[in-house]
Amino acid sequence: MASGIDGESLAALLAQVRARRPLVHHLTNYVTVNDCANVTLCIGASPVMAHALEEVADMASMAEALVLNIGTLDPGQVKAMLAAGKRANERGIPVVLDPVGAGATAYRTRTTFQLLRQLRIAVLKGNGGEIASLAGAGGRVRGVDSAGLDGQPALIVEELARKLRLVVAMTGARDALSDGKRTLLVSNGHPLMGRFSGSGCMLSSLVGAFVAVAPDHLEATAAALAAFGVAGEKAAERCSEPYGFKLALFDELSRLTPEALAKAARVRLV
Amino acid sequence: MASGIDGESLAALLAQVRARRPLVHHLTNYVTVNDCANVTLCIGASPVMAHALEEVADMASMAEALVLNIGTLDPGQVKAMLAAGKRANERGIPVVLDPVGAGATAYRTRTTFQLLRQLRIAVLKGNGGEIASLAGAGGRVRGVDSAGLDGQPALIVEELARKLRLVVAMTGARDALSDGKRTLLVSNGHPLMGRFSGSGCMLSSLVGAFVAVAPDHLEATAAALAAFGVAGEKAAERCSEPYGFKLALFDELSRLTPEALAKAARVRLV
Amino acid sequence: MASGIDGESLAALLAQVRARRPLVHHLTNYVTVNDCANVTLCIGASPVMAHALEEVADMASMAEALVLNIGTLDPGQVKAMLAAGKRANERGIPVVLDPVGAGATAYRTRTTFQLLRQLRIAVLKGNGGEIASLAGAGGRVRGVDSAGLDGQPALIVEELARKLRLVVAMTGARDALSDGKRTLLVSNGHPLMGRFSGSGCMLSSLVGAFVAVAPDHLEATAAALAAFGVAGEKAAERCSEPYGFKLALFDELSRLTPEALAKAARVRLV
Repeated sequence: MASGIDGESLAALLAQVRARRPLVHHLTNYVTVNDCANVTLCIGASPVMAHALEEVADMASMAEALVLNIGTLDPGQVKAMLAAGKRANERGIPVVLDPVGAGATAYRTRTTFQLLRQLRIAVLKGNGGEIASLAGAGGRVRGVDSAGLDGQPALIVEELARKLRLVVAMTGARDALSDGKRTLLVSNGHPLMGRFSGSGCMLSSLVGAFVAVAPDHLEATAAALAAFGVAGEKAAERCSEPYGFKLALFDELSRLTPEALAKAARVRLV
Repeated sequence: MASGIDGESLAALLAQVRARRPLVHHLTNYVTVNDCANVTLCIGASPVMAHALEEVADMASMAEALVLNIGTLDPGQVKAMLAAGKRANERGIPVVLDPVGAGATAYRTRTTFQLLRQLRIAVLKGNGGEIASLAGAGGRVRGVDSAGLDGQPALIVEELARKLRLVVAMTGARDALSDGKRTLLVSNGHPLMGRFSGSGCMLSSLVGAFVAVAPDHLEATAAALAAFGVAGEKAAERCSEPYGFKLALFDELSRLTPEALAKAARVRLV
Repeated sequence: MASGIDGESLAALLAQVRARRPLVHHLTNYVTVNDCANVTLCIGASPVMAHALEEVADMASMAEALVLNIGTLDPGQVKAMLAAGKRANERGIPVVLDPVGAGATAYRTRTTFQLLRQLRIAVLKGNGGEIASLAGAGGRVRGVDSAGLDGQPALIVEELARKLRLVVAMTGARDALSDGKRTLLVSNGHPLMGRFSGSGCMLSSLVGAFVAVAPDHLEATAAALAAFGVAGEKAAERCSEPYGFKLALFDELSRLTPEALAKAARVRLV
């Protein structure tokens, strides 16, 4: 692949996550926080959640990546996100932003833009409705679910990435991601991943684990998308019901080897 | 059945939930919130959790039902519940109240009456101790568990429903519910449903999903109770241990068909 | 055993938890709170979570034990912990403190010492890094995980217990605990218990359940450690993957009999 991003390079990143066990500091929502902690462990990283202004910068000082997820935001949490994010920026560790529900309420949209403006975000990862809505590309968001998308995912992420100067990833039946120069499609995954609550949040935690070990944030994000998708494909072979599947997904992530990822990853340059 | 509420009518409501996928806005506790989100998805509705005063009315404006659960209440959350509830009332969407732990502490009892007074609640759903305690009928509550009940469930819910002018549902080995005119008993369910944390909260989310699509809130509540109970019966056939059972319960709710509900629902008019 | 603490005495405590079903009031973190509630139920006790200053003392007034876990602390929660703890102390019910992440940030370390100073804590339970760090014994904490330990667990807990005049338990491949006079090692457990998020928090809930029924807090803590470890050993026979194992662990705790505990507990006096 012209980009140098292929199954082998993604597998090398997974091996690095496992070897370095990066600490991923989360400020996230209280709905799926347990799943985020667990998925971070599954991939081989170490999760920590801390939100008090009294310690948020200290915790960010120990971390290798910071994940901000606005799924149940409030003003106190936003203030803490800014404090943690500023410290992360000072230290040069990557910040992942999951704009859960952006486009659904003005508060979420406004806060997303505030975080994008006041912090240097490495990766912005959302569902189709959220990303298209932030891009002004006609995304529709209902609650925290994407309710539709006009336009081409690849074009939307590429333009938004160029404009914001970061990596933008938009999940869907096929995931699209771009750093403004290179645009990738990841075709791994399984429909059962949309049948339980929290898969989007879990993915953001995985992105956090991968960007923690990789200077190329586009490649790291592709690795997270592919690893999650491949684990989903394997879990679907074990269980066809959503909650049995969810359990199997955690275990398939835990046992996913770099070799298996290299073999099954379906990532291509657009 | 004289009331026109039978297995067929409940099944029709389940089909409607699945077809319309209503958005159910929750202000709920942080203990079982993930289970509430997932059970809402299982039944075919769409969950959203949002509590900030900055957005709670906006989110309620998109929703088809609002679920208020006081399991881990505090003054900020109560304020947000009032704001969301007022918007829900203005829009005419139903509000479900789960008075978790009412009767255990003065704060919970007082807050429940405040919400009942300041909002138009459609369905009040609690365990035996909570409802009897709110009815002044000798309920005992220990922490958030019902510790006993004097008197007849059917009489208690009927009187309280008449007094408060809403639907009251009291869960137990047999569930009793009433709108003050019609009183029903639902005999579905399984003892394993009481062996893990959160079944009461999960049920309130299901009530939210059903009232979202049904003008007759008594029937909708009966449908939620029956659907949850029937799924529990089916899950118990698959697993006899509480946590394996809980997993199976989610999956049985996901696969529950209107036909299966019609066949297995045990609802009768008192 | 010279201490009078053996499998039989631990089994008797489990029987008492099951018979008396103590109410265990938690102020804990939002990451693993659901697991804490469920594990409390599994062992036969009754969990309640409540944090509002408006009710925290009332809830502590109904409880038989109080568990304080600083995993996601903030100033409001610390204030509530102090209020609940003071009421618990007035009533003479035991208070368990899990200093999650102490040693990682100054705020967590400072708050742990504040709680130890202002409340009468019955049991301080942490991982190797946390306890050693509080003991000034060279513990290293990264996020909320122990990252290393210099020195002998048995010596560290004994000295700290003597200094603080309470029971100190330090988890690890082998758990060490002491009340300053008697020091025990518990050798039950399985490596899979460290592969998912929350086992440490779950254990603190179990300690709460056992100290609620036992005046000898050292013995109660040993019972919790042994019960959790034995259930883990049994779960590992059913499942070798972390998340299937976690599910089995809940069910093995639920079905654990006093007889099975007596037979499998490996507790010895140092």
